[in-house]
Amino acid sequence: MQTQVGIIGGGPSGLCLARLLSLSGIKSVILERQDRAYVEARIRAGILEQGMIDLMRRAEVSERMDEAGLVHDGIVLTFDGREERIDMKRLTGGQQVMVYGQTELTKDLYDAVLKDENITVVFQAGDVRPAGFLEGRPRLRFFKDGQQTDVDCDYIAGCDGYHGASRASVPRELITEYERIYPFGWLGLLSDTPPVHEELIYANHKRGFALCSQRSPTRSRYYLQVGLDEKIEDWSDERFWEELKRRLPAHIAATLVTGPSIEKSIAPLRSFVTEPMRFGSMFLVGDAAHIVPPTGAKGLNLAASDMYYLSTALIAHYHEGRDDLLERYSETALRRVWAAVRFSWWFTSIMHKFNDDPIEHKIQLAELDYLMSSTAGQTTIAENYVGLPFDPTFK
Amino acid sequence: MQTQVGIIGGGPSGLCLARLLSLSGIKSVILERQDRAYVEARIRAGILEQGMIDLMRRAEVSERMDEAGLVHDGIVLTFDGREERIDMKRLTGGQQVMVYGQTELTKDLYDAVLKDENITVVFQAGDVRPAGFLEGRPRLRFFKDGQQTDVDCDYIAGCDGYHGASRASVPRELITEYERIYPFGWLGLLSDTPPVHEELIYANHKRGFALCSQRSPTRSRYYLQVGLDEKIEDWSDERFWEELKRRLPAHIAATLVTGPSIEKSIAPLRSFVTEPMRFGSMFLVGDAAHIVPPTGAKGLNLAASDMYYLSTALIAHYHEGRDDLLERYSETALRRVWAAVRFSWWFTSIMHKFNDDPIEHKIQLAELDYLMSSTAGQTTIAENYVGLPFDPTFK
Repeated sequence: MQTQVGIIGGGPSGLCLARLLSLSGIKSVILERQDRAYVEARIRAGILEQGMIDLMRRAEVSERMDEAGLVHDGIVLTFDGREERIDMKRLTGGQQVMVYGQTELTKDLYDAVLKDENITVVFQAGDVRPAGFLEGRPRLRFFKDGQQTDVDCDYIAGCDGYHGASRASVPRELITEYERIYPFGWLGLLSDTPPVHEELIYANHKRGFALCSQRSPTRSRYYLQVGLDEKIEDWSDERFWEELKRRLPAHIAATLVTGPSIEKSIAPLRSFVTEPMRFGSMFLVGDAAHIVPPTGAKGLNLAASDMYYLSTALIAHYHEGRDDLLERYSETALRRVWAAVRFSWWFTSIMHKFNDDPIEHKIQLAELDYLMSSTAGQTTIAENYVGLPFDPTFK
Repeated sequence: MQTQVGIIGGGPSGLCLARLLSLSGIKSVILERQDRAYVEARIRAGILEQGMIDLMRRAEVSERMDEAGLVHDGIVLTFDGREERIDMKRLTGGQQVMVYGQTELTKDLYDAVLKDENITVVFQAGDVRPAGFLEGRPRLRFFKDGQQTDVDCDYIAGCDGYHGASRASVPRELITEYERIYPFGWLGLLSDTPPVHEELIYANHKRGFALCSQRSPTRSRYYLQVGLDEKIEDWSDERFWEELKRRLPAHIAATLVTGPSIEKSIAPLRSFVTEPMRFGSMFLVGDAAHIVPPTGAKGLNLAASDMYYLSTALIAHYHEGRDDLLERYSETALRRVWAAVRFSWWFTSIMHKFNDDPIEHKIQLAELDYLMSSTAGQTTIAENYVGLPFDPTFK
């Protein structure tokens, strides 16, 4: 096989990137290890920043999102029995975020990608191996139904997540990895119950963090901070709801509608950054290059700036014969990556219980008390939460 | 002996409190363990917030300070080879800080206090013991020249610092203490050299934090973050200056004027808070109740709000027969204490090297990069650095 851009990974980043390229006439092949049903069922992010919303529109896959997405103007923080609101729209001069589940977004992208003549998707492509990207002869080798295939291409986009083949194929001496592991995880529960509040609630509590999120007016997603040694089988739905209620202010807990869980899982929290994000003809995008803890919902939204920068740089290459943007990709993407890694780490730090030393919780409450007393303090949360801008000079 | 307010400790807090009370006709006795020369020679803080400046003026001891104090409109942050300025005056609508050494300020206070008929100072008062403050019969017992004396009083003010007798005399079951120790100290050097910069420079560097401070146009105070196991005798002046230069951007290091040290010492860093700050008829003020790391120069300035609240409350008691402010003292003082503990901890966290994991420094640089890119971010530093306001309802 042959194409212009070989994309490893058929998740939202790979799909959206392929669409952005296709609409400028650039051909790509996407290699996805699983089948479509598996990818679409993965439960991940649910909050889109303006940057990601704009990309979906530009990729011409936004019809359902614009219809069903719920626009949010603010978030709620609870701590010390208080309920406080960050009015993001007012504090940022009109910016908002949108609730639209990654499962839905992935469906919309596949509907468009599978009809797109510039894009070939290979599902169940096993043992994908990128090669030749440091020697100017990039190639993707994969196995399907016992048969080996090579995809010759001009560029490789590694959109295959933290555990993917793209980063793993880079010689160790060319790569620097930064990592921070957190001493807790998130226990998530999905249920067909109306959300407890129309906006998201981030709850700081002595017993640990809780988050009241949502996917739609009838589907809720709740999270509890739990120890890394917790087992999912020890968390009955009943125990989950009881613990959630204890971590919310009483007047909010009183209005919580509970119901059977559709899904329940525990995820660890991690900060991770790869430097650089380009290796010869291969570019890393999204989770393949960086992971943030989910506090603040930056994961998919951080992949958005990577997709934006990489599609812009590849379009400049193919249409204008300019490679300056490809040269700048890694440095430009990394600046926004580190900003989001910083914010996600900070928001995690201020909301979670890290240890039993009581001064930790007192300092968290002092910081939240200060932030709510200061317009500047609230603005720092708001402008990071809606998403820092893409670099306007990258064009 | 008998008085209205018995004050333990003849440092700036005790002296200034006594003056504020005296100017409303309230009598006090100050018990100081050392002699005047010793107290005046203690090298401590050098940056006064507006709140402390206002108290010095109200205490009618501001003549020299207003003449010799250097008003600063901003501070400089250096990191990643960059030199950035926080324009505090612009960001806070006109607020500033003043450079005026604690040694000078203490001299000014003693000059006034020792002439004040409402104030008795006992130097070399040994083994001071507060008693009876929980039973409504407060008394200070001390020894001088082998003789025991009791001071009967209405109230006791514990202005005797972290190691003082006031907090130590409180039954353990009545007190909650919060503490955080930092894994490094500050090596300070005083020299009669012109400051390297007209404003203070806070330097984040891979090798550790450095601070370029000053006492006057001809006297500089510099600090280096050092390990807790460092010994002062291993730090020749030459080694100090070399290390300082390495931690500053090259263009600043090039202008550093070095010279022989007048004083050199290593101090540990600590966050510490006592709750409550009132025990019956005894009130804790300043370092007796709380310690902050010196990053941000909050120590003396935090004592200022305690002095302000306590003098206001005692004046309301003696002049209006109202005890509501005495009742509110602890809660009101503690809110500002925690805000400053939070800021001092944060400023310490972002500027110092805590460990060898390289992600720590990358996240610090990302935070500093974000802050300098955001007016809101810079404002959060500025408004905390100039000092959060005293509670306007406390009157």
